[in-house]
Amino acid sequence: LVRLEPGEKIDELTTDGLKIIQAEDQFRYTIDAVLLSWFATVHRGDAILDLGTGTGIIPLLLLARQPELHITALELNEEVAERARRSVQLNQLQEKIKVINADLRSWKPAGHYQLVVTNPPYLPLGQGKLSASPKVGMARHELTCTLEEVIQAAARAVGTRGRLAMVYRSERLAELMEILPRYRFQVKRLWFVHGRAERNAAQVLLEAYKDGGPGLKVLPPLFIYDEQGRYTPAMRAIYQELRSVGLE
Amino acid sequence: LVRLEPGEKIDELTTDGLKIIQAEDQFRYTIDAVLLSWFATVHRGDAILDLGTGTGIIPLLLLARQPELHITALELNEEVAERARRSVQLNQLQEKIKVINADLRSWKPAGHYQLVVTNPPYLPLGQGKLSASPKVGMARHELTCTLEEVIQAAARAVGTRGRLAMVYRSERLAELMEILPRYRFQVKRLWFVHGRAERNAAQVLLEAYKDGGPGLKVLPPLFIYDEQGRYTPAMRAIYQELRSVGLE
Repeated sequence: LVRLEPGEKIDELTTDGLKIIQAEDQFRYTIDAVLLSWFATVHRGDAILDLGTGTGIIPLLLLARQPELHITALELNEEVAERARRSVQLNQLQEKIKVINADLRSWKPAGHYQLVVTNPPYLPLGQGKLSASPKVGMARHELTCTLEEVIQAAARAVGTRGRLAMVYRSERLAELMEILPRYRFQVKRLWFVHGRAERNAAQVLLEAYKDGGPGLKVLPPLFIYDEQGRYTPAMRAIYQELRSVGLE
Repeated sequence: LVRLEPGEKIDELTTDGLKIIQAEDQFRYTIDAVLLSWFATVHRGDAILDLGTGTGIIPLLLLARQPELHITALELNEEVAERARRSVQLNQLQEKIKVINADLRSWKPAGHYQLVVTNPPYLPLGQGKLSASPKVGMARHELTCTLEEVIQAAARAVGTRGRLAMVYRSERLAELMEILPRYRFQVKRLWFVHGRAERNAAQVLLEAYKDGGPGLKVLPPLFIYDEQGRYTPAMRAIYQELRSVGLE
């Protein structure tokens, strides 16, 4: 039905039967993508753009929440885009997800989307160990685009009241909140994710509206693991709501 | 020893014997001031400026933590400043706390402080009910200074690596984080305060360094009340560490 390349395998994504193709030696989807898919506000019929889709995980999980969506998934790396496209075929979702192999810096959207989602590379160059694998490196480090270029691309893709939902390292939140208003994005919701209750936040989920009014909600935080190192009830509830089989 | 005006009373502040004069019909100190006094980084010998000291609560509690500090406490309202001055006398701390009746917008510091602390008015004009009492109104609403004017005053008062510690409404965090970098303040620590674990944050405590490098820590959040409406162990530990008698 769908071709697998050497080193690839098919993983179960949801108990509903959604599947995803992943390559063993490359960037695999993380809890961040799962949290973003759960966090983003989606409405029936929305046109959605995913900037840097990678495995295609976010479009697939968004459709697990709301089947009536039209998603454009941009991916710079040709091989990765082609794999995401096969994952879409595997789930027979070609009508709902369109994977485009393009550079978000130069790609011009034909019209406006209601929502842009993105899980961009976290680390500025020169910080953190650069992966030996260029494909993993691209997903983690700002090798191919900076944070500002991602925001810029999102701003081009939405009109007034259009939404941006993203997940990012909370360490870089100050930078993010300085850049967003330059592109007319008003932050409306922040959700901090702590590995454990007594640790600093590792990630932040953020929702911004283009030309939105003031007033920001800081949601109750998410703690991923309890003191015994098991998923907290809150984390388990998220997996259940997405009908996701979860990550080991 | 110290004169009391009609309507004023002396409240116990710490189990160490610190006292504070408060007026029944005016702005009384809140949990925000207690949290800020606990949160701010203070070092022995620091010169500290409190912008809008009100009752003088923050200087008093900072000295409960570290007795070797030199604190300048600015207050716009003459009557309120005079009351804070009498609270300082009551505790015989005139050598350590200097209360100045001045407008932070025009006041020029003689030199640089190591730390500026501030619990500024929260509400922009036109939002929230304006208090019938002009003195309470001044402490709550931006009647006499805007958020940006407070940051501006703080920036004038510190040199490179000087610190700013403040408590603010988390609803207005986006605005705050847009203004701070304009005055060369880099946010280094954020601490969110939730009334209860399942509610949105109400306050945020923030520490910024002038000309600081990147890298922001989002601390484990504070929940003030547990499910039974009692102080959480974390909140009780803060009161204990400050030897504060607590708020009802």
